[in-house]
Amino acid sequence: MPDIYTQDISGCFADAIGDGGVTPDALGRALDATSEPWKIVREALSEDDFPALNIAYSQDDIADIQSVASRLREHCDTIAVIGVGGSSLGGEALTALSARRAPALHFLDNPDPETLARFRTGVDLARTGAVVVSKSGGTAETLSLAMTVVPAILAARPADDPQSFLVAIAEEGENPLRRLAGHWNVPVLAHDPDIGGRYAALTAVGLLPAALAGLDIELVRSGAVDAIELNIGSEDGREAPAVVGAAVSMELLRGRGARVSVLMPYADALAPFARWYRQLWAESLGKNGRGTTPIDALGAVDQHSQLQLYLDGPDDKMFTVITQDLDGRGDRVSPQLAQVAGAEYLAGQTTGDLMAAEQEATIESLVAHDRPTRRIAVSRVDEAAVGALMAHFMLETIMSAFLLGVDAFDQPAVEDGKQRARARLATNKTGSTS
Amino acid sequence: MPDIYTQDISGCFADAIGDGGVTPDALGRALDATSEPWKIVREALSEDDFPALNIAYSQDDIADIQSVASRLREHCDTIAVIGVGGSSLGGEALTALSARRAPALHFLDNPDPETLARFRTGVDLARTGAVVVSKSGGTAETLSLAMTVVPAILAARPADDPQSFLVAIAEEGENPLRRLAGHWNVPVLAHDPDIGGRYAALTAVGLLPAALAGLDIELVRSGAVDAIELNIGSEDGREAPAVVGAAVSMELLRGRGARVSVLMPYADALAPFARWYRQLWAESLGKNGRGTTPIDALGAVDQHSQLQLYLDGPDDKMFTVITQDLDGRGDRVSPQLAQVAGAEYLAGQTTGDLMAAEQEATIESLVAHDRPTRRIAVSRVDEAAVGALMAHFMLETIMSAFLLGVDAFDQPAVEDGKQRARARLATNKTGSTS
Repeated sequence: MPDIYTQDISGCFADAIGDGGVTPDALGRALDATSEPWKIVREALSEDDFPALNIAYSQDDIADIQSVASRLREHCDTIAVIGVGGSSLGGEALTALSARRAPALHFLDNPDPETLARFRTGVDLARTGAVVVSKSGGTAETLSLAMTVVPAILAARPADDPQSFLVAIAEEGENPLRRLAGHWNVPVLAHDPDIGGRYAALTAVGLLPAALAGLDIELVRSGAVDAIELNIGSEDGREAPAVVGAAVSMELLRGRGARVSVLMPYADALAPFARWYRQLWAESLGKNGRGTTPIDALGAVDQHSQLQLYLDGPDDKMFTVITQDLDGRGDRVSPQLAQVAGAEYLAGQTTGDLMAAEQEATIESLVAHDRPTRRIAVSRVDEAAVGALMAHFMLETIMSAFLLGVDAFDQPAVEDGKQRARARLATNKTGSTS
Repeated sequence: MPDIYTQDISGCFADAIGDGGVTPDALGRALDATSEPWKIVREALSEDDFPALNIAYSQDDIADIQSVASRLREHCDTIAVIGVGGSSLGGEALTALSARRAPALHFLDNPDPETLARFRTGVDLARTGAVVVSKSGGTAETLSLAMTVVPAILAARPADDPQSFLVAIAEEGENPLRRLAGHWNVPVLAHDPDIGGRYAALTAVGLLPAALAGLDIELVRSGAVDAIELNIGSEDGREAPAVVGAAVSMELLRGRGARVSVLMPYADALAPFARWYRQLWAESLGKNGRGTTPIDALGAVDQHSQLQLYLDGPDDKMFTVITQDLDGRGDRVSPQLAQVAGAEYLAGQTTGDLMAAEQEATIESLVAHDRPTRRIAVSRVDEAAVGALMAHFMLETIMSAFLLGVDAFDQPAVEDGKQRARARLATNKTGSTS
């Protein structure tokens, strides 16, 4: 069996990109610094003390998730997944893999009145359901969405059992979402209190939307398990892609000021995955003035938008290109038509051939411009691959947090904005008194 | 009449964000440097020598665009807009304003076999049309898409006149897309050779998709005109928002290393606009090691993804928050339900009230964390507002290019990747010989 994914960091080395590239000595020192944290991570995993990743090995909750999903699928043509940040990005990353159109999933992650008006007029509320997700049960946007959208659905299907079209996901204990679920008499799946929102993609938070989209959620987990095993197979971390990735990232930051981290998959279906990564990396590492700034890009599209900047703008970035096997896939350009156009280089080439040539060309071009570039390759973009990539980047993020000396699991700074928003609402004359 | 938009840079000043903020003296010097370039820009505009913006004043092509749009709308349930970068992002930014669902517009901007397979199986090809856009007429991805998708459509509607469901946009002269259009016997709208792709949003490139989506394209242009007039009304540029914006951006880069420029609108409908901006800024300024790196963010969603990094990560960013009037808009949370939930702060508040509180809170929070923050405010996110924002950012980008000493209109570095991709295709055994 080939590995579930491979990583190639040769485009980050000094012999590829010149001065400022990583040298074997510098990488060795960076890897030395990972030795203790990697021991901690491996031990936690082996002792079932790393819930965000240990959940990948679990089968216990699969039947529950699938049963909720099939109940909702049976009773809904449209399902709103209400949640924001870690409560939506993992589900979005997974459901992007599905080509199914029914039931239609709408991720409502923003209390934008225009979006909500369009949603309300665009669906048959009598055949609509909702999954409401908030770890704390108290996320303001999620509550505002749930308390406006769910009553409309309930009003539209008075004869139906709410359990057939509504479900919530929240921590145990007293919290607003649990109280609403009790009031509406609908089930709540437990959100593990030890798994932060942005690390919850492999739990029901990511897998219930995936199951609603008809995906094989056991494959998501088995892909994650394969990636974890691939990494923990390396006792000292020197052969673990996530450890090496963290060491290279942090050495490029230290050594040449690569303070921006661009993730550029060559697959439309991975665009939401790149946004999931963007949250994971930003919120886990961006604190105490530290961290690097993640950017989600998309090949081949961003060759026509961002590549000029990447190649010739400020040299302050590291690039990770996610490639897949594309040769021969897709429809073929007729040689006759290519001749008519005067575009003979496309004669007989499939769309996949072009994407395949472009992902290689972009990597070559970045390296030729001395930009540090890593490749992560998967054979197909499917459930197992995305599960594996999620596990990889969770591990890489946590290892990077150790190296930066920050807590990968908190997000203290955003509390300030929440309090300011609540204070503003409290003085809002259009609300509460009306 | 209030201005079509307003700009507030007070959150960029030293008295708001402390040392490293812009001082009046520094801003004065930066504005001095804009004096000559602004004279050039104003003269070019007055002499009809700035086609990307002068087109906003034109009525001549409106009827043509509307006539093509109504023909395609009549004969199509689905329309593929085939183009990449500047040939798609402007249309996407505009069509995001439309709530109409028919005809369904699909922007095909990537030769991704999986996306194309889903498109082919998800539409009725016998009721599908296409708009194919490439300024040069030779963009590889666009040709690959056109030469695979259009033949499938033609095969599915053999009895229909291709002119009723197909149209191309390309420069005059001999080029592959013109040759294909001739071969298929379909009309071609002329792409002004003096308007680069990323500056083409106010031409048919942006307005034909907008018209297909049922938008008022004259309003787009009149909004742009309002914004241009607002700016050129200031002879020395010191009251022109785009000039001041460029001066502040470049002074923040020079003075405190604000090398990342985050654009964060509080409106789902502006998310594609932020991606349009991202291309405009990156490709126009990112050269010779200069420029700043644009990031598209979205309020309130990214409060739960990126805000932690923005507030507490590396202090290397400038923020532009686009706000709109939201108070009282949207559905209202029932006070009774808020009480049941124990979320009394939401009692009687609309979703718009919450968004309104959050856009203010985010600006306050960024400034309280000493992060340079500008506000651009529009009253409503509609055709006129987006036309105005497009004109503003084109002007600001061009003024910034003057200040950086780079050519805003070329993108020399990406040629390398194109040649590498073609070289790879030429040796691709699955193509041409088969």
